[in-house]
Amino acid sequence: MTGIIVTDIARADQSTIDALAVHGVATVHEAMGRIGLVGPTVHPIQNGARVAGSAVTVLCWPGDNLMIHAAVEQCQAGDILVVASNSPSLDGSFGELFATALKYRGVRGIVTTAGVRDVVDLRAMDFPAWASAQNAQGTVKATAGSVNVPIVVGGAVIRPGDIVVADDDGVVCVPRADAETTLLASEARVAKEAGARAAYQNGDLSLDRNDLRGLLADLGIRYVTQGEWADGDR
Amino acid sequence: MTGIIVTDIARADQSTIDALAVHGVATVHEAMGRIGLVGPTVHPIQNGARVAGSAVTVLCWPGDNLMIHAAVEQCQAGDILVVASNSPSLDGSFGELFATALKYRGVRGIVTTAGVRDVVDLRAMDFPAWASAQNAQGTVKATAGSVNVPIVVGGAVIRPGDIVVADDDGVVCVPRADAETTLLASEARVAKEAGARAAYQNGDLSLDRNDLRGLLADLGIRYVTQGEWADGDR
Amino acid sequence: MTGIIVTDIARADQSTIDALAVHGVATVHEAMGRIGLVGPTVHPIQNGARVAGSAVTVLCWPGDNLMIHAAVEQCQAGDILVVASNSPSLDGSFGELFATALKYRGVRGIVTTAGVRDVVDLRAMDFPAWASAQNAQGTVKATAGSVNVPIVVGGAVIRPGDIVVADDDGVVCVPRADAETTLLASEARVAKEAGARAAYQNGDLSLDRNDLRGLLADLGIRYVTQGEWADGDR
Amino acid sequence: MTGIIVTDIARADQSTIDALAVHGVATVHEAMGRIGLVGPTVHPIQNGARVAGSAVTVLCWPGDNLMIHAAVEQCQAGDILVVASNSPSLDGSFGELFATALKYRGVRGIVTTAGVRDVVDLRAMDFPAWASAQNAQGTVKATAGSVNVPIVVGGAVIRPGDIVVADDDGVVCVPRADAETTLLASEARVAKEAGARAAYQNGDLSLDRNDLRGLLADLGIRYVTQGEWADGDR
Amino acid sequence: MTGIIVTDIARADQSTIDALAVHGVATVHEAMGRIGLVGPTVHPIQNGARVAGSAVTVLCWPGDNLMIHAAVEQCQAGDILVVASNSPSLDGSFGELFATALKYRGVRGIVTTAGVRDVVDLRAMDFPAWASAQNAQGTVKATAGSVNVPIVVGGAVIRPGDIVVADDDGVVCVPRADAETTLLASEARVAKEAGARAAYQNGDLSLDRNDLRGLLADLGIRYVTQGEWADGDR
Amino acid sequence: MTGIIVTDIARADQSTIDALAVHGVATVHEAMGRIGLVGPTVHPIQNGARVAGSAVTVLCWPGDNLMIHAAVEQCQAGDILVVASNSPSLDGSFGELFATALKYRGVRGIVTTAGVRDVVDLRAMDFPAWASAQNAQGTVKATAGSVNVPIVVGGAVIRPGDIVVADDDGVVCVPRADAETTLLASEARVAKEAGARAAYQNGDLSLDRNDLRGLLADLGIRYVTQGEWADGDR
Repeated sequence: MTGIIVTDIARADQSTIDALAVHGVATVHEAMGRIGLVGPTVHPIQNGARVAGSAVTVLCWPGDNLMIHAAVEQCQAGDILVVASNSPSLDGSFGELFATALKYRGVRGIVTTAGVRDVVDLRAMDFPAWASAQNAQGTVKATAGSVNVPIVVGGAVIRPGDIVVADDDGVVCVPRADAETTLLASEARVAKEAGARAAYQNGDLSLDRNDLRGLLADLGIRYVTQGEWADGDR
Repeated sequence: MTGIIVTDIARADQSTIDALAVHGVATVHEAMGRIGLVGPTVHPIQNGARVAGSAVTVLCWPGDNLMIHAAVEQCQAGDILVVASNSPSLDGSFGELFATALKYRGVRGIVTTAGVRDVVDLRAMDFPAWASAQNAQGTVKATAGSVNVPIVVGGAVIRPGDIVVADDDGVVCVPRADAETTLLASEARVAKEAGARAAYQNGDLSLDRNDLRGLLADLGIRYVTQGEWADGDR
Repeated sequence: MTGIIVTDIARADQSTIDALAVHGVATVHEAMGRIGLVGPTVHPIQNGARVAGSAVTVLCWPGDNLMIHAAVEQCQAGDILVVASNSPSLDGSFGELFATALKYRGVRGIVTTAGVRDVVDLRAMDFPAWASAQNAQGTVKATAGSVNVPIVVGGAVIRPGDIVVADDDGVVCVPRADAETTLLASEARVAKEAGARAAYQNGDLSLDRNDLRGLLADLGIRYVTQGEWADGDR
Repeated sequence: MTGIIVTDIARADQSTIDALAVHGVATVHEAMGRIGLVGPTVHPIQNGARVAGSAVTVLCWPGDNLMIHAAVEQCQAGDILVVASNSPSLDGSFGELFATALKYRGVRGIVTTAGVRDVVDLRAMDFPAWASAQNAQGTVKATAGSVNVPIVVGGAVIRPGDIVVADDDGVVCVPRADAETTLLASEARVAKEAGARAAYQNGDLSLDRNDLRGLLADLGIRYVTQGEWADGDR
Repeated sequence: MTGIIVTDIARADQSTIDALAVHGVATVHEAMGRIGLVGPTVHPIQNGARVAGSAVTVLCWPGDNLMIHAAVEQCQAGDILVVASNSPSLDGSFGELFATALKYRGVRGIVTTAGVRDVVDLRAMDFPAWASAQNAQGTVKATAGSVNVPIVVGGAVIRPGDIVVADDDGVVCVPRADAETTLLASEARVAKEAGARAAYQNGDLSLDRNDLRGLLADLGIRYVTQGEWADGDR
Repeated sequence: MTGIIVTDIARADQSTIDALAVHGVATVHEAMGRIGLVGPTVHPIQNGARVAGSAVTVLCWPGDNLMIHAAVEQCQAGDILVVASNSPSLDGSFGELFATALKYRGVRGIVTTAGVRDVVDLRAMDFPAWASAQNAQGTVKATAGSVNVPIVVGGAVIRPGDIVVADDDGVVCVPRADAETTLLASEARVAKEAGARAAYQNGDLSLDRNDLRGLLADLGIRYVTQGEWADGDR
């Protein structure tokens, strides 16, 4: 495995990042065309946190957190640390001491395919985490890895400097070059959804609002009564 | 896959449904003879909710929520929407806009073998959800399915109009025809458990209360001291 | 399966047990040399509980909780009930009535490879549980098992009288004979971590504090700029 | 759990069953409209077997095979034994002695959500099995269940007397009442596929044969060269 | 984690070990009283192998096979190498070169909670493997572990010198002290099963042979016709 | 999701690809520095196949194989079709008719994160498949996706034109630009392993051959006898 630490990654405009955080994961994912999700194996360790930041990426060996130590130095205010291991591992390679060091630097949270520990402390510190497990399992510092190289995190590729948005719905990655267009598309979607919300609060049906009745008919879907559906048990 | 929307399903008496909700999933499941459970893959997305309602069932294609749009129109006050896909999928096919439309109609919650998203909003709206995942993954509206046909949800078959009870212990389905007898059996069980609870609060042992000492002996179980159990390490 | 109930297990000194509880799972696990963990399949059912106690162990048949009934009588103040089944099962073999009986006896919590139910009540009673599932599934009382024999719980062997520590990071087992030395090692670790925490709060880097820069170099890890890393997309 | 053994189930015409076996699982599933599959958790224990038969269904308690003993008596030539447990279990509740008894009666195979054992013998006897695991774990005979009641097997409901078809692609259930129409639809599909196969062997494209180019265009899918797709790394 | 290599483990009598191999996993597991199984996560990588041997145990760090290198030297003819990692890992820490070295020493196979690779070669060499995965993932040689200490392998504890039996039904561990009694019990079971087999080949029913009809009645199980079971759809 | 079909992907030199196939997955993965693996969720559907080819990549919607139809036209002799869906799905989106069309074009196999069906036919045709499941579940042709864009396949990113090597140990991806250097490194590794193999066949130990005894000592690992290890049960 290549051992590389890239020191000068480019980041997106902070105000764009902060604006993406407001919209949350589901909206940003839709705005991108329904791509970019990490998927539900990496889940929130707390309820109600919503953050966005620039990815500082880490590729570790399973059972080893040496490269997280190296990555802390590469982090700055507004970043999110994103950790993957080169084969699956649920070990608790991240805990409260790392969170303390990252908080000092203004880092906004951690996303990891491995586990986290000191969960009570992370919640008390208000340092949000998305991980595959809560797991006390300790790790060693023995094997090479990389910092700020592209990594696979669940179903997504995350490159250093990409924008990571995370909340209770999961984690989404916005490629750095797409930050502005994704923000615009998110805002458009929010506006559209506001109209839909108001309509549904008044009892409108999405079948009508989205003109879906014709599609149902085209697909051959029939409306029947219980009685008409003689063969009712299937 | 048959495309059918059944429009006039029969429902159980609402007062029976409401009384079942009070007893909760574990009691109702026991009262039915330990059957009817969906099982732990479909878990509560919030803590402390307990609801019961008439099932409006939806069978979707994976990655597609067209039929949920069609199902909203079939829902009325006191219902619970129950969604399955015809092959496994964790996509977030249900979110806050659907919940808004369903709240208007008096629907009490959602049970789905897929994922839900906008989890923060669902909790804030007090619209409870039981799902296989919190997952922002969006879906399309392209493929036929059915509304109000029997569906397999985890280990249970749920028919339209069956009573679904859901709380932190999971989800149970009471066939509509069994609603009254299950309520009576639930009440009997609650009464019996009240006696057991009082006894245990006083230090009684279930071994004695349930006459289990004879069974232990019949099964050949021996009481030994650590010393007597020479071979103590196995 | 042998049917044995061992009645007079030895326990560790209660003050040692209580002191271990203060340190929590991650610290105790590290103090033992990174062993003894049950692992993340057995997870906390509540947030924020932290307990330690002497293990009273139960080996059940899947779908059967007869031996938990037998185990209650063997419990005393300061114990934790630890349950495994001889093949995997997620059934809800433990609930509020058992918790009531155990609270009377001063038991501090339950750790089980199976499921628990009546979760709302367990939380309200402040009786903490670590389990593989929240699951209403009921069980029978029909098949022999054992109480106070060594059992496999996730990745750990737990013997009767061992100290079990449990919190939001999972569950760890301290062999009874190692209680004192583990407590001393935990205290040493806590002291060491206090120093590290203070340093990190001041912006020190673990790379420096742990002298890791030399190791990175020995492993051939190079610091490069984005520009230098021509082949930057891998 | 209800304890019922239904003794006189109706079965489909044997020649129809045998004709369905020839077509195999994928074809029959398609012919039914893409429903009825058990799904890949229940997989073949051998390679190359393909059978169909009338389902004799068994609902067992986990870790218990009492009801399989009761079910043997209900089996006749041309049947397939189908076993589920009322909560998930991988125990090896079926092995060579059961297969011996069933072979005597002309039973064609076993489908089970639990495990099977004596796998070497089952293969040598040419008694095919579809199961969730190869697992030596033994079971008891202690708890009630039912024979010939509808059961949930993976994603399918199987009723006694339904036709079960099983091969290397999995297991599909054809409701008894649909046997004839499914056979006709299977034959039509086989004929249609023969034409497609011949065309593809000659180099025809399914894009053309199925008139899919228009659909691709309608969905907005564009053909581009590597050069045109400037942003080629996403 | 303790770093220990125990050099002079005691082994059972080889003729007893060889006799156990003949009986296979299911029989030996039953003869022990239905305990000792590793469980189906560790599965055979080939079909039809059946071996028994003395366990040389290895505890590795995840992603690291250093201790397997150390273990080879401790192996002798008739042994089986048994490997676990102190947190879950599917990496391919064992392959053809290790098998070559072990074959030279007369070792009979490998059982590992991790993965194996060079699977084609292992099959060609007739060196049987039971593992959690076929996985090319390479490992490092960097972190301490132990050889010939007790380890947890699936649901079983395996101590150095215990007898491991493995075939297509899985892996079972016989404690060294129980080798003789387990062999006798296995032989008794084989004799008993021969009688049962002959009876079933003649059409006898296990219901009668095991006197189970009374138990069915005691459990309240009723024989009904389809017609009598009015409520036939549940 | 972007809908793009890239029509003119660059491929590596065919003789290099063929030479990589000879070395197999484990060797190529090691030669690359232990990266590039898909991982064990995508496993071989047959035994003993070993192929390499240029990746033609497909990104499908779950439950939909429209884009595989589009991809066939982009395939040429020496290619391997590589399929992922944008959220997890085990549906059988690939079967014998696709294999027939691909064989005509000289395609060497299929790698898919979804399922395959017609498994008996695929084996008979000698068209090798690596998939997440054998599953008859049919799919629709309704939703847009892409052909020849980078996709995430298990833990690996595969770009169109990358070299995919697959055998019984799994699937590895060699970036096109690294084909030559990886081949050279593979050849070097094979040569080195030949020496090791010969040594091990003569009884040499890898501890000596790799100079690992010093490392064991540095890590504090001690050789002890059973007797010296008083506390022998841990």
